[in-house]
Amino acid sequence: MLRINETRLLGDIAELARIGATAEGGLSRQALTPADIEGRRWYQKKIAEARLDYAMDGAGNQSAILFSDPPSEKRILAGSHLDSVPNGGRYDGSLGVLVALEALRTLKDNGIRPPVTLEAVNFTDEESAIMGLMGSKAVVGQLTAADFDRSRVDVEELTRRFSAVGITRQSMLAATRADVLAWVELHIEQGTRLEQAGIDIGVVNAIVGIRSIHVTFRGEAAHAGTAPMDLRRDALWGAAAFVLRAREHVMQNYSPGVCNIGMINAEPGAFNIVPAEVYCALEFRHGSDEEMDRMGADLLRLLDECAAEFGLSVSCEATPPVIPATMSESVMGAIERAADSLGLSHQRMLSFAGHDTQNIANIAPAAMYFVPSVKGISHNPKEFTREADCVNGANLMLHTLLELMKEFA
Amino acid sequence: MLRINETRLLGDIAELARIGATAEGGLSRQALTPADIEGRRWYQKKIAEARLDYAMDGAGNQSAILFSDPPSEKRILAGSHLDSVPNGGRYDGSLGVLVALEALRTLKDNGIRPPVTLEAVNFTDEESAIMGLMGSKAVVGQLTAADFDRSRVDVEELTRRFSAVGITRQSMLAATRADVLAWVELHIEQGTRLEQAGIDIGVVNAIVGIRSIHVTFRGEAAHAGTAPMDLRRDALWGAAAFVLRAREHVMQNYSPGVCNIGMINAEPGAFNIVPAEVYCALEFRHGSDEEMDRMGADLLRLLDECAAEFGLSVSCEATPPVIPATMSESVMGAIERAADSLGLSHQRMLSFAGHDTQNIANIAPAAMYFVPSVKGISHNPKEFTREADCVNGANLMLHTLLELMKEFA
Repeated sequence: MLRINETRLLGDIAELARIGATAEGGLSRQALTPADIEGRRWYQKKIAEARLDYAMDGAGNQSAILFSDPPSEKRILAGSHLDSVPNGGRYDGSLGVLVALEALRTLKDNGIRPPVTLEAVNFTDEESAIMGLMGSKAVVGQLTAADFDRSRVDVEELTRRFSAVGITRQSMLAATRADVLAWVELHIEQGTRLEQAGIDIGVVNAIVGIRSIHVTFRGEAAHAGTAPMDLRRDALWGAAAFVLRAREHVMQNYSPGVCNIGMINAEPGAFNIVPAEVYCALEFRHGSDEEMDRMGADLLRLLDECAAEFGLSVSCEATPPVIPATMSESVMGAIERAADSLGLSHQRMLSFAGHDTQNIANIAPAAMYFVPSVKGISHNPKEFTREADCVNGANLMLHTLLELMKEFA
Repeated sequence: MLRINETRLLGDIAELARIGATAEGGLSRQALTPADIEGRRWYQKKIAEARLDYAMDGAGNQSAILFSDPPSEKRILAGSHLDSVPNGGRYDGSLGVLVALEALRTLKDNGIRPPVTLEAVNFTDEESAIMGLMGSKAVVGQLTAADFDRSRVDVEELTRRFSAVGITRQSMLAATRADVLAWVELHIEQGTRLEQAGIDIGVVNAIVGIRSIHVTFRGEAAHAGTAPMDLRRDALWGAAAFVLRAREHVMQNYSPGVCNIGMINAEPGAFNIVPAEVYCALEFRHGSDEEMDRMGADLLRLLDECAAEFGLSVSCEATPPVIPATMSESVMGAIERAADSLGLSHQRMLSFAGHDTQNIANIAPAAMYFVPSVKGISHNPKEFTREADCVNGANLMLHTLLELMKEFA
């Protein structure tokens, strides 16, 4: 049975990790910064060494290409991203690009000419140094000029970074592709579900939607001495009740869906003043719009209940939601058949973090799979995925591509 | 039965309220600002008009004096403060000075020469424009040079304000008095207990102690998507549980003692990060050291419980406490006998706010009493005490002084 070259793959992981390395043992390769550009050059060099073809699109997305003969009109794509968060780990994104490259190299080494052209893609700016999921958003035609105004870097810096790799705003907006036949991405889980269950592979059946809501409880400021407690309308009492009830309700009724209150603040804000207003940042995630709608309605009901119970009012302001992305049954099936053939255990699961796959799913059958993260640690120098899991992930990429070729060619 | 002059008292209240008046109908007479100085001049003029003697001590405290003949070595003092918070009300402090003045005028008008010298005092800076309770602190010898460094105004401004009324740091530090036989203060309740109970007078049996504690719950930051809820150590869960349990426990076991969590903040502080650390500002108040100790121990136990329940740690940092001040039984008795003679209903109650009386209680038998505040509103232009209650309070001051003369002369 065809297998990838373990030594080569593990060598690549170690080599790439030295680019942008930090003192803490992590790496900083924020999109289109000098370290990221060095990583991109390294990737291009590896592609050349493997005698694969290389291309970069108007969004700066880099591809290793293994052409079919004759070159097919449409292509099967795999990959992830080489950029990182500041002082992040060596597996998040990078492993997905490296296993796609390794799969193409293995096919080429074995003289396998695919029936349809294959690409191993490094998407630009997945990690939000500029805006996040930028390269894949451009590819699916969802990037707009307005997005540049929401960039996390200023205009000059944006222009500097784009020109450093030879792209422009215009080229980005024109980077839409219509030639994607199917897409598959390997990513580290960044959670502990696989590790806890002792399962090799998580086949992602949906990337969760995210709704973020600014919540404000309003009561009445009062002197923290002279106002008897039974007459207070303390906004923090309602907020505290909501924190606990939302936790309880979501855990009992929506697991594996999750919610978080990540920010909280009381006004006026003094030891001796009863809080008149409490702000909370509420976020919740689940795999389908139906579940998100039900969760949302339940959480709003809990907000109202908690406010009423303490004589408060409550108001909500929603931010633009992230829509859940359902994965393609046929691509998931290809991953699962490949895993079975390799003897890898697998289970379906939600992805609770965003990935380029959620964009690509808008234009082509797409799916992704996870390999285990030790202790779930990610976006951290301590991020780690065992060598055996990296190798499993790469072999699974190889055989998934073989399955997809059968299905889509 | 001897009564104060209602028209004169109510006229004084209205007249004084025009000094430092704000557009909202309140007044701003922060200590030793031009408006406060105008108020102080007005008080001095009223004293002269009443043909009472006038004196100002080294702390800027102003007194109307009705001498005994011969002048006694020790004196019975009554009063409060004429300074205000920014945009405060016309009753807080001012009413206490005006009823003391009115009581002395009434005695003088009626040719009553007291067996012991009486003073109606306006204490400097009760409301913390400079440091709070400053004039009374000076009188009891607890003001130190270090207190000036903790002033809320800078050195130049402090010097400017002091020199505007002819005092200095040195004169303040030398303002200690050893001639106080007894002290009584009228103040508005600034709460709703009297109004709710339909009682005329609250005889304060203690001014509560205040303990303020910086509390920090510590858990672990986590990705708000990928970290399963049952594995999170969310610091906000512990803090929320504490907010609710502290409320419940104090209301059930320590009423009328109170607690408040007036500030809260989660770190790192983002929609998508599980809070690693939550800071809370905890304050609690009660009338005796014993109760404060028991409350404190219970609240610490609740903190530990809530932390343990959610896998958190918790740490506390106490700030310098305000010690509860127990009122003098003999002065309370004088107030109660006077109230009975006037047919005023009364009950004993705690003062949950700080007052000059808590300082004077360190050097002499002292007590204070409350008249009702409409809706408990204070430190606000809407602060209001009905005319009948102002008059009751003044008659009670007159007869309390008569009782104190019997007891202490």
